[in-house]
Amino acid sequence: MERIGFVGLGTMGAAMAANLRRAGYEVTAWNRTPGRAGDLVALGAGEATTPAGAARESDVVVVCVSDTPDVEAVLFGPDGVATGLARGGLVIDCSTIAPGATAGFATRLAEAGIGFVDAPVSGGSEGARDATLTIFAGGEPDAFERARPVLAAMGKTITHFGPAGSGQAVKAINQVVVTGAYLSVAEGMVLAIKAGLDPALVADALNAGAARSWVLENRSGRMIDNEYPLGFRTSLHLKDLAIGLELARSVGAAMPVAGLAAQLEAGLVGRGHGDEDMSSLARTIRSLSGLEG
Amino acid sequence: MERIGFVGLGTMGAAMAANLRRAGYEVTAWNRTPGRAGDLVALGAGEATTPAGAARESDVVVVCVSDTPDVEAVLFGPDGVATGLARGGLVIDCSTIAPGATAGFATRLAEAGIGFVDAPVSGGSEGARDATLTIFAGGEPDAFERARPVLAAMGKTITHFGPAGSGQAVKAINQVVVTGAYLSVAEGMVLAIKAGLDPALVADALNAGAARSWVLENRSGRMIDNEYPLGFRTSLHLKDLAIGLELARSVGAAMPVAGLAAQLEAGLVGRGHGDEDMSSLARTIRSLSGLEG
Repeated sequence: MERIGFVGLGTMGAAMAANLRRAGYEVTAWNRTPGRAGDLVALGAGEATTPAGAARESDVVVVCVSDTPDVEAVLFGPDGVATGLARGGLVIDCSTIAPGATAGFATRLAEAGIGFVDAPVSGGSEGARDATLTIFAGGEPDAFERARPVLAAMGKTITHFGPAGSGQAVKAINQVVVTGAYLSVAEGMVLAIKAGLDPALVADALNAGAARSWVLENRSGRMIDNEYPLGFRTSLHLKDLAIGLELARSVGAAMPVAGLAAQLEAGLVGRGHGDEDMSSLARTIRSLSGLEG
Repeated sequence: MERIGFVGLGTMGAAMAANLRRAGYEVTAWNRTPGRAGDLVALGAGEATTPAGAARESDVVVVCVSDTPDVEAVLFGPDGVATGLARGGLVIDCSTIAPGATAGFATRLAEAGIGFVDAPVSGGSEGARDATLTIFAGGEPDAFERARPVLAAMGKTITHFGPAGSGQAVKAINQVVVTGAYLSVAEGMVLAIKAGLDPALVADALNAGAARSWVLENRSGRMIDNEYPLGFRTSLHLKDLAIGLELARSVGAAMPVAGLAAQLEAGLVGRGHGDEDMSSLARTIRSLSGLEG
């Protein structure tokens, strides 16, 4: 069994690393902010003081940090993974970052004899905890096959889309596709409230037909109550959507609804709602319509 | 068992009337264009030469025509249902029309001692054929209870939302909620194509997570192929969306995505795509992005 280094113990990463340990992998973890490895150490994992230190104890390093510059720092910065991981090692990046930068990271690692798979995830903190994440993978086929059992310990639906960066592109597309559902469900719930209907009854009835969606099933209640517990942070979705819009710009694709959603989410973050679930998009539709929002 | 008059034998109405006949109801049908009742007569239904004639043979008249003026004409025009139906009769309007006009029709019928239920449907020609329609009902509670067994012979999920017009309001909300899914799935599929990914593989993977929707499951393939067999006509969705936007205006609700979709659908109708399935919204995103559309 490969020895695993795990870099980044946020809400997602800590749960994913725990599932690797439970699946029987040796895990050596590192986190930028100390004191996050307690639960993992209790499961028998080791703790390193640098990303390079975690990599030195490992064959495969899983990275799960916030954004493109963070991945670059933990891979190629001083005491980064690239200085600790031996030739023949593999990096699996589960962060959600830019597809173009990802391809560049893969090239730099290849020059050091290190394989690379991008494997951003979807499914939130519940999916991370229950190892039911959806994983979008990119990379060379042999690197992906090597990564597959590691990914299978953290997620359920695992798809390989093509070369390095492909997984990130699909994650960006995922974030584009959800936006319309959030906005339209918000519009529908606000219209139901304003028209004097029972919005929860409306949501239930609509879910029996062509309007059915994960968002209508799982997030319309928050929009009706105007309360937005996490879930998935609006500020993080805005970061991901910016990646999607940049990808769209680079390949020449027009995304009117995703562009509108990004503007509205920027407004929500500006109003202090960035740490709420992204169903807080309903705040905007509610406010525009004279409801508390 | 109540005797049923059925007014309007379009694709939806003809299938719904056949299901009433199969459920054992006596049915007398009328259609504006003659020659549409053949299949129904073969099932043992009668045919009338006017809406009033169908009503005279019936206790309950089901109406399934195209738009608000059509409903007004078959109910209150010369030889309309109101002149043929006895006091104590019931009209069930399965057309998709304006909620406000619907409330007015209910009042006029009540003055003639005739009950009224608005019961617009969702689920398309397959749902009409298989009696699996979702039905959104409005009307007085006793009128709805009387209509329920008739509706149950045509549909599966039947919900009563409130007074006359409520069913139409919920149908309008349904058409608002689907639009964002169509547009965002189109954006996602176009982005996948432009980014060099396999869009069908992307759609499958996304359906495992929060981007899951009826539209992604059932309509992304048409958007990828750029072929839009029916389904549900773009021109009809535009008519329904106009009802939704008028409802929104009347109650003071802002619908930015539904408003955008209506503009794009008007453009599609203008380009001659009104008789295609409404997944042809993808044509617009494709065209804007330099793909055939």
